[in-house]
Amino acid sequence: MNFDEASVISALARIFGTTHRGVEIGIGDDAAVVETTERTVITTDMAVEGTHFKSNWSSAFDIGRKIAAANLADVYAMGGSPKFLVAAVTLTGAESMEWIEELAEGIAHEASSCGAYVVGGDLAKGPCIVIAITAIGEVENPIARSGAQVGDSIYISSLPGWSAAGLAVIEKELEEDLAVHAVSEYCAPTVDYAAAIEFSNKRAHSMCDVSDALVIQAHQIADASGVALKFDQALIAQHLEFATLKELAENQNVDVWQWIFAGGEDHVFLATGKDLEGFCIGTVVEGAGVLGAEMKKAPETWRHFN
Amino acid sequence: MNFDEASVISALARIFGTTHRGVEIGIGDDAAVVETTERTVITTDMAVEGTHFKSNWSSAFDIGRKIAAANLADVYAMGGSPKFLVAAVTLTGAESMEWIEELAEGIAHEASSCGAYVVGGDLAKGPCIVIAITAIGEVENPIARSGAQVGDSIYISSLPGWSAAGLAVIEKELEEDLAVHAVSEYCAPTVDYAAAIEFSNKRAHSMCDVSDALVIQAHQIADASGVALKFDQALIAQHLEFATLKELAENQNVDVWQWIFAGGEDHVFLATGKDLEGFCIGTVVEGAGVLGAEMKKAPETWRHFN
Repeated sequence: MNFDEASVISALARIFGTTHRGVEIGIGDDAAVVETTERTVITTDMAVEGTHFKSNWSSAFDIGRKIAAANLADVYAMGGSPKFLVAAVTLTGAESMEWIEELAEGIAHEASSCGAYVVGGDLAKGPCIVIAITAIGEVENPIARSGAQVGDSIYISSLPGWSAAGLAVIEKELEEDLAVHAVSEYCAPTVDYAAAIEFSNKRAHSMCDVSDALVIQAHQIADASGVALKFDQALIAQHLEFATLKELAENQNVDVWQWIFAGGEDHVFLATGKDLEGFCIGTVVEGAGVLGAEMKKAPETWRHFN
Repeated sequence: MNFDEASVISALARIFGTTHRGVEIGIGDDAAVVETTERTVITTDMAVEGTHFKSNWSSAFDIGRKIAAANLADVYAMGGSPKFLVAAVTLTGAESMEWIEELAEGIAHEASSCGAYVVGGDLAKGPCIVIAITAIGEVENPIARSGAQVGDSIYISSLPGWSAAGLAVIEKELEEDLAVHAVSEYCAPTVDYAAAIEFSNKRAHSMCDVSDALVIQAHQIADASGVALKFDQALIAQHLEFATLKELAENQNVDVWQWIFAGGEDHVFLATGKDLEGFCIGTVVEGAGVLGAEMKKAPETWRHFN
């Protein structure tokens, strides 16, 4: 063991702090006590070493950012604002104090970029690193997956596929310039939280976070709403980043649409509605399922039940 | 893989349900949306296979009960009432559908015994089973660890040590009658939630859940309150279950006080105050730390930072 419990706890208490607005009792008791409003959003998302991150490719700071972002994005995807996080972390005992502090700093950094704070957690010992975060937020007008209406336009907050591209680059150990952004997005995605707030402010009819894969989550909106989501690949191809992503894909003999539709782990926001501020990629039509998303291979996924 | 994601999710949705009071949006969206009051309690607690449970000794139902209980007890220990749970679960892929359903049923059973419901979660694949639960509850008058006052009596809701006794029995593969209760308490503790409610109703000055070890958590109350907790072993020895636990300890050449003071994982409630309804084990006095808890060996622990 490269650290002792007392040092870890005092480091975490320092990094996460305890005197934030709305936190009546923070780290250091059986549970935190916080101020809440009438409607609260709750979500949980975990990251497992080997499955969701690779310690030799991602810094502890990036790992912390990535798993915090996954949770924060889910709160925004409901039209809410994240306020509080708790983190349950399994460590093997082989980590250094520095690594643990960086992980905590990554979580705290991503959270505070959204005005949210870590108010508690749990540490356990196990055979691999697992980080489970729960985010709690407030919401006035929840935006569910079930609200898409025929005639809505479909919007994304940014182009998905970069995380899948990053993973492909890492696995092939490529070192080309184009790859740098992709690897960075895989290690810790840049989430456009402001876009979700914009979608909410403009009263999007439906919204979700594209953490699994664009086509999977579009299916979920379609199923929940009893409509079909029709993508227009010509529109998607007009995205400013499309040409770069396509070039990176072609260099690796990958179909760029595979990354875009089936990639996952991007935390892009997908919304439907009228005159939203976002990049339009199609329309909601009568029917069922997803149209216009032809891929060679269905996305592989095994994750959410929230 | 003995199951597919779709089957697991539909089984979980069936077991956890979605139409409970106070749940506006349950399982099936990016996050749950629930009704909350002004003050919310948040806690998270995880269980790791090998560290907190052994699959060959505990049924999946008991494992689910145990980790749910750990979270529910933490909410009660703040003087609160648990309302909602989310569960993040890492599976190896070798589990059967039946095992997964039993785990979920164990969580749901323990939660519903407290009037709480599972409203979301996350599933991931990894090299070992990890279950991280977060409980959210409401509280009017939080009871912190920092409220103990000189002159308070110290109370416990039941005798701690049974879980440690159970682990010892399991490790030695004993099969005596006395051991049955101990093993059962190790596999899934019986938590006297009503005792915590009683402590709250009688306005306990301080309270916590003895999940680490009695002496560790007494130290935490003493430190947070700036007082000393003085145990009276003669009082503890009058507990109805003491003789049985002592006999079990002596049969194994263990000092029973080691189990009682240093055992952990019992989820007994420890409170201080005046005229509470509980089993009195000592008094709060001027000074620092814990008095009257002599053991041969300090408790080993490596867990909480909440």
